[in-house]
Amino acid sequence: MKKLILVRHGESQWNKLNLFTGWTDVDLTEAGIKEAYEAGKLLKSEGYKPEICFTSYLKRAVKTLNEILDAMDMDWLPVEKSWRLNEKSYGAIQGLNKVETAEKYGDAQVKLWRRSFDVQPPALAIDDPRSPRRDARYAEVSDKELPLTESLKDTIARLMPYYQGRIRQAMEEHETVMIVAHGNSLRGIVKELKGMGNDEITEFNIPTAVPYIFEFDDQMKLQKDFYLGDPEVIRKKIEGVANQAKKK
Amino acid sequence: MKKLILVRHGESQWNKLNLFTGWTDVDLTEAGIKEAYEAGKLLKSEGYKPEICFTSYLKRAVKTLNEILDAMDMDWLPVEKSWRLNEKSYGAIQGLNKVETAEKYGDAQVKLWRRSFDVQPPALAIDDPRSPRRDARYAEVSDKELPLTESLKDTIARLMPYYQGRIRQAMEEHETVMIVAHGNSLRGIVKELKGMGNDEITEFNIPTAVPYIFEFDDQMKLQKDFYLGDPEVIRKKIEGVANQAKKK
Repeated sequence: MKKLILVRHGESQWNKLNLFTGWTDVDLTEAGIKEAYEAGKLLKSEGYKPEICFTSYLKRAVKTLNEILDAMDMDWLPVEKSWRLNEKSYGAIQGLNKVETAEKYGDAQVKLWRRSFDVQPPALAIDDPRSPRRDARYAEVSDKELPLTESLKDTIARLMPYYQGRIRQAMEEHETVMIVAHGNSLRGIVKELKGMGNDEITEFNIPTAVPYIFEFDDQMKLQKDFYLGDPEVIRKKIEGVANQAKKK
Repeated sequence: MKKLILVRHGESQWNKLNLFTGWTDVDLTEAGIKEAYEAGKLLKSEGYKPEICFTSYLKRAVKTLNEILDAMDMDWLPVEKSWRLNEKSYGAIQGLNKVETAEKYGDAQVKLWRRSFDVQPPALAIDDPRSPRRDARYAEVSDKELPLTESLKDTIARLMPYYQGRIRQAMEEHETVMIVAHGNSLRGIVKELKGMGNDEITEFNIPTAVPYIFEFDDQMKLQKDFYLGDPEVIRKKIEGVANQAKKK
């Protein structure tokens, strides 16, 4: 039986500070490192044996994957990184506080930027120091492909060539594939796998550092999908993600 | 100017216990993690910008590279792993104490196993639990290629197809390439780069977690090579490596 394991990165410094992160390359917190390692221990104890892994160009995902592999005693596994697995770009609101932004622009506007399918946050200026065009890691990506802001629809559009190409190819060649990425890039993959509508996927919240398992038959037809771990802990993590922009 | 950066992994648990390690997949110590991170900070402060990295299938090398990349803020760099960069196999003496082995077999014999060019330590039995043929990570390598013991000559022979093929190709394509590996696999590369004789390379000790820089002209002719860092610290590290099997 073919398997795909999705994992959203552990808690980052800016998750903790409740800032919009997007393509900003912020680090994991100590708690984030710990929950990543715990996810790896769980995968190991449940007998999962990925053969190849994929992650983004952002350190909170790369380091989550490193921790998982170390906990599984599989540091040697091949890892491929792609900017196409990066988080949705939040454009000019990257670095702003989620609650303060809601107070300034209104809950409805911020909810559109965070949760609509096709509304983009305000774009970064081309000469903004935060622009990916100024970041050496994206030197080989054309300016046309590098986003200055993105809706979820845009994120999915730039993710799909990599998912449909490289990742599906790896799923053909291997029994088990693991992807460690971000809330919105993983939404794109879940939407595709489960055939969700645009409204459904925007309301679908993936908890941090919880292995999300997809099982397929020999024709690569999805048989079932489930989270690994304690359902109560997972429920609380999902609610935490959903409530980030609520005023306290 | 083309550059190649070689780094030997940081202190491992078995370096500290003074055991023969070889292909045993032992972890770094806290000190090993720290010296790896320091090597990355030094590379960053000196302005080195590798574009692609290579490492072995052994976690002490993989994790040293992870720490270096994290300190350089370059977690996103592509990393390729190969069993051909693994440490020399010490065969059946893997897991034995270096001083006790010297007491049992004599200093001269142990020196041959550790420092001769072409004398192999006793081989692992085919059904030994330590045999790489029983380890899933080597499933795609033919039994013929998987060593049950190795001399330095053997290590270099299995390393060279990867170095001459994949790594030299990467050096053609990129300005700066980094390899994080082991005392003996790095000896093979240094021997090749500097045209050293068999006796010379066996006496050449590479310090742990010190960036060793090679600079080339446009025709890929070696111009100079040097260690980065405090010469006194480096000298002490080299002496420490050379003296490991001496009785105390």
